[in-house]
Amino acid sequence: MTAAYSQLAAHFGKVAALSNAVGILQWDSDVMMPKGAAETRAESMALLHVLRHGMVTDPRIGDWLDTADGDTGLGDWERANLREIRRSWTVETALPADLVEASSKAISASEMAWRQARADADFKALLPYLAEVLKLQREIGRAKGEKLGLSAYDALLNDYEPGGRSAKIDALFDDLADFLPGFIEEVLAVQARRPASPAPEGPFPVEAQRALGLQMMAALGYDFERGRLDISTHPFCGGADSDVRITTRYDETDFSRALMGVLHETGHALYEQGRPQAWLSQPVGHARGMSLHESQSLLVEMQACRSREFIGFAAPKMLEAFGGSGPAWQADVLWRRYTQVQRGLIRVDADEVTYPAHVILRYRIEKALIADEMPLSELPGVWNAQMRELLGVTPPDDRLGCLQDIHWPSGGWGYFPTYTLGAMTAAQIFDAACRAEPEILPGIGRGDFKPLVGWLRANIHGLGSLYETDELLTRATGRPLDAGVFKAHLKRRYMGE
Amino acid sequence: MTAAYSQLAAHFGKVAALSNAVGILQWDSDVMMPKGAAETRAESMALLHVLRHGMVTDPRIGDWLDTADGDTGLGDWERANLREIRRSWTVETALPADLVEASSKAISASEMAWRQARADADFKALLPYLAEVLKLQREIGRAKGEKLGLSAYDALLNDYEPGGRSAKIDALFDDLADFLPGFIEEVLAVQARRPASPAPEGPFPVEAQRALGLQMMAALGYDFERGRLDISTHPFCGGADSDVRITTRYDETDFSRALMGVLHETGHALYEQGRPQAWLSQPVGHARGMSLHESQSLLVEMQACRSREFIGFAAPKMLEAFGGSGPAWQADVLWRRYTQVQRGLIRVDADEVTYPAHVILRYRIEKALIADEMPLSELPGVWNAQMRELLGVTPPDDRLGCLQDIHWPSGGWGYFPTYTLGAMTAAQIFDAACRAEPEILPGIGRGDFKPLVGWLRANIHGLGSLYETDELLTRATGRPLDAGVFKAHLKRRYMGE
Repeated sequence: MTAAYSQLAAHFGKVAALSNAVGILQWDSDVMMPKGAAETRAESMALLHVLRHGMVTDPRIGDWLDTADGDTGLGDWERANLREIRRSWTVETALPADLVEASSKAISASEMAWRQARADADFKALLPYLAEVLKLQREIGRAKGEKLGLSAYDALLNDYEPGGRSAKIDALFDDLADFLPGFIEEVLAVQARRPASPAPEGPFPVEAQRALGLQMMAALGYDFERGRLDISTHPFCGGADSDVRITTRYDETDFSRALMGVLHETGHALYEQGRPQAWLSQPVGHARGMSLHESQSLLVEMQACRSREFIGFAAPKMLEAFGGSGPAWQADVLWRRYTQVQRGLIRVDADEVTYPAHVILRYRIEKALIADEMPLSELPGVWNAQMRELLGVTPPDDRLGCLQDIHWPSGGWGYFPTYTLGAMTAAQIFDAACRAEPEILPGIGRGDFKPLVGWLRANIHGLGSLYETDELLTRATGRPLDAGVFKAHLKRRYMGE
Repeated sequence: MTAAYSQLAAHFGKVAALSNAVGILQWDSDVMMPKGAAETRAESMALLHVLRHGMVTDPRIGDWLDTADGDTGLGDWERANLREIRRSWTVETALPADLVEASSKAISASEMAWRQARADADFKALLPYLAEVLKLQREIGRAKGEKLGLSAYDALLNDYEPGGRSAKIDALFDDLADFLPGFIEEVLAVQARRPASPAPEGPFPVEAQRALGLQMMAALGYDFERGRLDISTHPFCGGADSDVRITTRYDETDFSRALMGVLHETGHALYEQGRPQAWLSQPVGHARGMSLHESQSLLVEMQACRSREFIGFAAPKMLEAFGGSGPAWQADVLWRRYTQVQRGLIRVDADEVTYPAHVILRYRIEKALIADEMPLSELPGVWNAQMRELLGVTPPDDRLGCLQDIHWPSGGWGYFPTYTLGAMTAAQIFDAACRAEPEILPGIGRGDFKPLVGWLRANIHGLGSLYETDELLTRATGRPLDAGVFKAHLKRRYMGE
């Protein structure tokens, strides 16, 4: 191994140390920080982003890469590490430091403004902050796109989904947008004929919900020595290497939202906790893009934990946690509720059938906004019109409309499509896993996730970024991503086909 | 104003942004972090310390300082800011970066080892970690001392107490060590003749204790928009500018420990929250050394909140919080308990009469260890012998002996004497404040701390590091520190003199 490779590895070990600090501070901002500290924190975050930017654009990296590329003594992991370092180097050197700093500050301000604006259902209060974030995201996209030969939007997308292209996504999403409205009609008609599914009666105290969530996390194999469960307005999985923290929010009238949220974030966390330990701090040890990441949360939440098998295991645990009684707590009744399809307003509460419609709407809007094809001030109107078109519902206010998600205020432009790419990927992976390991579904029925998680560790989590997305998926499932298994899954679960 | 001064101010604004990040991460390590993240966190902390060291030793600082010193357009605050920057510059440039990094890593490892060793009362398990920290502290002290013309110990002390010298402290502490054993005897004899003071009967649920603590913090004027109250093994005040967080620990059999701990840390927090807002991120805006800091916590806890006036206000609040009944809840009885003197083992639980003995012991030991006049392996034996000599008690194990404090494992060598310097300073300041503002004590009796905190804001908190310690104290109280008022306070409160 050349000195150049070793220097790169040491350098990116330091980058990881800095990123881990940023991850914990970001978690703190969302979970712990008092309001009055926002400005001070924004200064810290901006500085750390600038320092990080300085490290990942260190001019020595280019020289080290060129030397290390000629190193014949490197193994597959080291080679893949070089590939990932070069990818990040190309993108990061596209950005001037003042743009990185301005963006970080604009995001901090806009996140704070969003919290208040969302509570007040006041889009106008957010508008100037969001406009600044959008303007800077557009600049970032253009700067990266120029270097990569991509449109501004594809350049932003590429950060979350390496190799992802909107032309491909357009085709997949247009197909789904054709399929879904009719399919939703059919499912709703079928479900209207099912027996009534009474809701378990609350209240469901936060402490009992938390205890149930922790129990389910433990069943899934979440490692509490390397993470935490807390509360935040917008649930997320974050933190640092060896410190993978998830959050949820509790509603005392409905425990299933927090529970399914916890299962979802646990799916993310299992991926993070299962990354290759020897490569944890190196780019090749990172999770392989956000659609893979979303696939792991949706695999756990949608594929595994809304299966009849899982509800059969979980129903008595729920009963025990809340001390309920009556038919609402029967597994069949609960399962019908957990697979209930509804035209709803809120993405994070959406069922897996309507969810892609929420994503397609956001994807189309953010693509238009980045391309400057639509004024930001029209966002609420466009949002509501597309909700009517795709889902047949109209938000009564912007809190339940375009203010519901933190992604845009926090600079996550190009992220949304990965949710639905993730749903398709989840279906394809879960299907392949169950074929390869017949013990998976019966295991889930007993609350034993070891067969599932073992397969995921070996075929997804433990591989980090060793392979490009298409190759990883082909090795795991036999082919690159298509929508076939996802549609088949929906038809099977919701139409009994 | 010269460009050089502006550049210094901008540069130290960035140093503050980095220090604030470190402060929050340190808080997280003590309050939130899961065990398995310790190594990863240590990497992050070490990196941030190295980055911070790089910033405060930036070679441009020396040039900027030399140019700015000749700037005739600067006001008093700017001049004092230059003085503080030069002080830090002199000290920080004394240390090579690898020593800073090694020390940071050794401290992280030793803090983790201490948590376990303390729980297990196992000094031997801590010994190798602590030896490494001591070795590096000695190196740090020597390197700084060489630059400042001080002994290694005085150089370490100087970081916490600018201008502090062990020769002065030796004199003060020897005097106290002569005074205390006899005084403690006398007080114990007097208290033995007092009527019995039954203890309030528990259990005292953590939630009720927390609510009472929050109520008292609010009465003191703690700003919850710029801070939090949480739980940690060793209570502290930390966090960042505009984000001043305190912690406590709860014992359900005795609420007074957590309550008095909260009041103590609130004293620290009021100082931090009251620093001059316009200078918050500049060295001149920092608190004026640790004995001043300790004076503010002890002023609140010992001078104000163990006064008969405060207990008169607090007794009905305590009764309400825990729903007790009987003579134990009478203000006179509670006050006798809050001024009860005991020969105890634990510093943080010690009363104000015996507390200085705990500090003198630590001061003498750490001075000997830094000077290499005593092997670290003999610490438990020496500790126990001095406890017998100064306090007449012997720890049954090291958990209740030399493992009780985090200071040494976390690299806080030279810090301990500031506690007792702080107690003397607190007495001197409180006495001057009450003379200048007669409404202070009656206010405390009504739970109205505005007269006290208003005076402290104007005479201590709001001045930051504008003046050197002696000048600050002379302006506030009429003279530099001596032990006279402290002794008079003890004689008045405990002997009725």
